[in-house]
Amino acid sequence: MSEIGLIEGFLKDNQDYVQEKYADKGALTVTQKTSASDLLTEVDLTVQKRFVDKVESAFPGDVIVGEEGDLSRFPDDPEARAWLIDPIDGTYNFVRGLFPVFGVSIAFMSGGLIQAGGVLLPMMDELFLAERGSGAFRNGERLQVSGVQQLSEACIDVDFCEPGDRKHLFKRCNEVLLQAGQLRCRGAAVVSICQIASADIEGYVHMNLTPWDFAAAQLIVEEAQGVASRLDGSPLRPFDRVGGILLSNGAVHQELVDLLRV
Amino acid sequence: MSEIGLIEGFLKDNQDYVQEKYADKGALTVTQKTSASDLLTEVDLTVQKRFVDKVESAFPGDVIVGEEGDLSRFPDDPEARAWLIDPIDGTYNFVRGLFPVFGVSIAFMSGGLIQAGGVLLPMMDELFLAERGSGAFRNGERLQVSGVQQLSEACIDVDFCEPGDRKHLFKRCNEVLLQAGQLRCRGAAVVSICQIASADIEGYVHMNLTPWDFAAAQLIVEEAQGVASRLDGSPLRPFDRVGGILLSNGAVHQELVDLLRV
Repeated sequence: MSEIGLIEGFLKDNQDYVQEKYADKGALTVTQKTSASDLLTEVDLTVQKRFVDKVESAFPGDVIVGEEGDLSRFPDDPEARAWLIDPIDGTYNFVRGLFPVFGVSIAFMSGGLIQAGGVLLPMMDELFLAERGSGAFRNGERLQVSGVQQLSEACIDVDFCEPGDRKHLFKRCNEVLLQAGQLRCRGAAVVSICQIASADIEGYVHMNLTPWDFAAAQLIVEEAQGVASRLDGSPLRPFDRVGGILLSNGAVHQELVDLLRV
Repeated sequence: MSEIGLIEGFLKDNQDYVQEKYADKGALTVTQKTSASDLLTEVDLTVQKRFVDKVESAFPGDVIVGEEGDLSRFPDDPEARAWLIDPIDGTYNFVRGLFPVFGVSIAFMSGGLIQAGGVLLPMMDELFLAERGSGAFRNGERLQVSGVQQLSEACIDVDFCEPGDRKHLFKRCNEVLLQAGQLRCRGAAVVSICQIASADIEGYVHMNLTPWDFAAAQLIVEEAQGVASRLDGSPLRPFDRVGGILLSNGAVHQELVDLLRV
């Protein structure tokens, strides 16, 4: 089995489970992690556990990192074969029923590069897949970022993070917040980043994100001719221990970098 | 036919049409109104035209106001029997495919009070209905706002409006933006206001909104035991010519009003 084959198969195999749990989410046990809005459900744990079993069986010895529990760490060797899973990105939206804007995200890295990525939006029946050098696809249809050229005509999703981080965010993002044509904050990184690839929005800014939140979606955007970087425009490598990320359709990237300059 | 009966029947009758147009939205003709993000499609015009025909046939002589064209005005007599339609609230989201967060909104007023309101979220198969004094319902199920008591644990949707209005917004909303537990901006007032009624979020702030954008959803929130006011806490009457609106689950309302004080 290829790595992208594992990703595609796993996401398809788990869609029914996530859909069923969402439909009956009133029955879920929800626990708080670091704050009232940092939530954990059995769905996060089950999907992650199933994925670990799958990888250990197909590719024994590969590193696995992920959002939940003791997988939430960086690998010792950033160039090793490594799998990154966010079992539910947007757990808060999942629990509260916010539209339902959440996704399951899986990336495969080796040599420090993202080689394959998949994001499933279970309730929208949308599966995004990308392999390095082979393009990005949604349900089999090839994706291409939008041609919007100016920030004043662009739609940018800014994540407002936890309250404690927001003073810093409003300072650094002030001009982006004032100048973007449209602003959204939907609270699920993988959803908004994939929607850059599908030309629905132009950019995404997050001040502090862990690799399993964005690695798959990053490759999907890059393979749809978009651009991913740190907030200062420098390369975005998931296992660098730096917080902020900026993804865009490319055309508005420099304008965003200039405005985000500290 | 009762007024609520007209609203319910009209929304149900037009769901298929809106769904079909959304599914084939690449074929829509989109025109700009006041800016690159103030959009108009044939769907807005068709739904509004159909509604006008329906009201003129069922209740001849009633005032009709709405988002599009020459219906976009205030009635001479704010106490007259009046219908308010926003044929697609969230046209930008509709056109760009943002999730699909948009709705059809219809309210009926008389004596200056909102007497009946309906909001259809066509792609979610969700129909919100309320009659004054009789509760609010989603697909027949009675709604009740959330019991969240503190802003630090609440999810608040803030609309970031057009770029020109944002300096004022960030000044007035600064403390709300810093203190809310979670922030969202989804770009369709009726969706977020209805989600206060269904206990998915706790509050909604918009600095400048016209009556057809919120009248139906306001009644839905009030009938689900929530609270609607101006930004300073004073009564929200759709035909007052004042801009900002604040809706919440009630429990966090005073905290929001205090923070929004100029």
